[in-house]
Amino acid sequence: MKLATLRDGTRDGRLIVVRRDGTRFAHASAIAPTMQRALDDWDALEPKLRELAERLENDAVESHPVDPTQLRAPLPRAYEWVDGSAYINHIVLVRKARGAEPPATLRTDPLVYQGGSSDFLGPTDDIPLADPSWGCDFESEVAVILGDVPQGTTASEAASYVRLVTIVNDVTLRNIVPEELAKGFGFFQSKPATAFAPFALTPDELGAGWIDGRVHLRLRTTLNGTLVGDPEAGPEMHFSFFDLIAHIAKTRAFGAGTIVGSGTVSNEDRERGISCLAERRMRETIEQGKPTTPFLAYGDRVEIEMQDRAGRDLFGRIEQTVVRYEKKSATGRTKS
Amino acid sequence: MKLATLRDGTRDGRLIVVRRDGTRFAHASAIAPTMQRALDDWDALEPKLRELAERLENDAVESHPVDPTQLRAPLPRAYEWVDGSAYINHIVLVRKARGAEPPATLRTDPLVYQGGSSDFLGPTDDIPLADPSWGCDFESEVAVILGDVPQGTTASEAASYVRLVTIVNDVTLRNIVPEELAKGFGFFQSKPATAFAPFALTPDELGAGWIDGRVHLRLRTTLNGTLVGDPEAGPEMHFSFFDLIAHIAKTRAFGAGTIVGSGTVSNEDRERGISCLAERRMRETIEQGKPTTPFLAYGDRVEIEMQDRAGRDLFGRIEQTVVRYEKKSATGRTKS
Repeated sequence: MKLATLRDGTRDGRLIVVRRDGTRFAHASAIAPTMQRALDDWDALEPKLRELAERLENDAVESHPVDPTQLRAPLPRAYEWVDGSAYINHIVLVRKARGAEPPATLRTDPLVYQGGSSDFLGPTDDIPLADPSWGCDFESEVAVILGDVPQGTTASEAASYVRLVTIVNDVTLRNIVPEELAKGFGFFQSKPATAFAPFALTPDELGAGWIDGRVHLRLRTTLNGTLVGDPEAGPEMHFSFFDLIAHIAKTRAFGAGTIVGSGTVSNEDRERGISCLAERRMRETIEQGKPTTPFLAYGDRVEIEMQDRAGRDLFGRIEQTVVRYEKKSATGRTKS
Repeated sequence: MKLATLRDGTRDGRLIVVRRDGTRFAHASAIAPTMQRALDDWDALEPKLRELAERLENDAVESHPVDPTQLRAPLPRAYEWVDGSAYINHIVLVRKARGAEPPATLRTDPLVYQGGSSDFLGPTDDIPLADPSWGCDFESEVAVILGDVPQGTTASEAASYVRLVTIVNDVTLRNIVPEELAKGFGFFQSKPATAFAPFALTPDELGAGWIDGRVHLRLRTTLNGTLVGDPEAGPEMHFSFFDLIAHIAKTRAFGAGTIVGSGTVSNEDRERGISCLAERRMRETIEQGKPTTPFLAYGDRVEIEMQDRAGRDLFGRIEQTVVRYEKKSATGRTKS
């Protein structure tokens, strides 16, 4: 089942069910007005949503064409956004890039940080950047959306809490990272609003691509129309989503709608390219003594997508342009 | 105006308006069903809520007795919980306690971390601790709840975004902190669910106690019935809430209902006592070579409250007991 959130002028948008080919949708408001409400009462509502999805596949319900610009993040705001860093290759390269050592517990203890979640970007929303000297970078990731997770959940119990899978652009301001981490409290200003793909899918939609809490498919990123990376998201994800869930639930519970990210997808095989500019800059530093690839500039366009093994698009495309952010004098929100 | 959230079996509870003396309440569901909905549409709903509060003061509306055990956190779940560390004395003492230096930018750049926010504890909820060796500690704090904050908001603009003020127990697992911070990504497992006071107040209720984004009143903490601290929350809050808001909004926007904490309230004057056990343990280490005060044990009871200058209670009392956490075999939530 493929779900999405339609822009309707409200803070949370309106839940829709999307046809498997991504081209048409049916309103699901009669079942649950919003994605969060569906997640809040998933056990009761999932069967009804699946029935609607089935009717949509069979053209047995009123449907409408999908316009990606009218879609918001599947959860336009969420109660938790916890991002891991589960690809060892990325950790090693990025730490080298800022002259830091990988932690001693690199392979035994997952790295996660808590991100901001009150105001996500939708799949075609611009990246609002106030200052290009902050070093704006994309990070292409896979993410899961959870049901209620009790404190003390183990990795072997975690599968039953994964409701949906999607992909993410975890925008990062690289030049703010070193000073911020030096203070010891982790990322904050260096992680502006995160963007999400149009569609969130139940794991069964990934078929054999969803194994042991990992998505065994390639995540494609293009920059200004040029493919920059298509790494395999599965084999090198050192900690699976189940491991990450067990890690975060050690000391507290999580409510429905919690989003957990994989961290930047990264392969040791350089042929697979990059899912963030920081990795390319590190390789340039190793080979040429200094980075030559600049961070994102105004007008740069990032696209992120994933196909199944038959070449069919899964999550729709994140396609964002970096734009100059100028604060409005009014205090109201403009996104909705 | 004094607002609270009544337990009603749902995830978000039901919004109520509380009389100034904290003894009786009126249902506010007809105006906004939940606290989040009130915050989402504050400009339109605040006047109606204030009118109801006025009628409640004048006994001109149906009211009911307040039972603190029936109250949840003002926001039982929130889209962001951003906790600062704005009291220099606390930072210096706690870093000494774990053998770490205060950051070089101690007085110029605020420390904040992003906390979990999908599953807060209510004012009388037990603290569910799975392992006492984690070193469970309380942290008594002041917090504000915000409206929509645009990216780039300055400290001088921040006052207009503060909707409500409350107090907090930012429960911390001290023995997990050092290893976690050594990994470089900040707190995560070391910060279990945070607890909130019964009532959230509009800043005008604090009168002369609310000045320049600080609460100039004493925050009282008792442990097992004994007063352990009543520091002044105002003068030594190095970064005001307005400074903290400007800091967090530098690179992104925040949605209504974002909660920002002050960090552990702490005074240089030792007569004012402590708002967390870590500070007392540090002083013991300095004077006696090692800490003698243990962290919290099962059965320990923490109470946190604040009065105005006339001695009237403001936020109601956080009163929590540390209990053994045992995971249930079922997957459902039990809190509501």
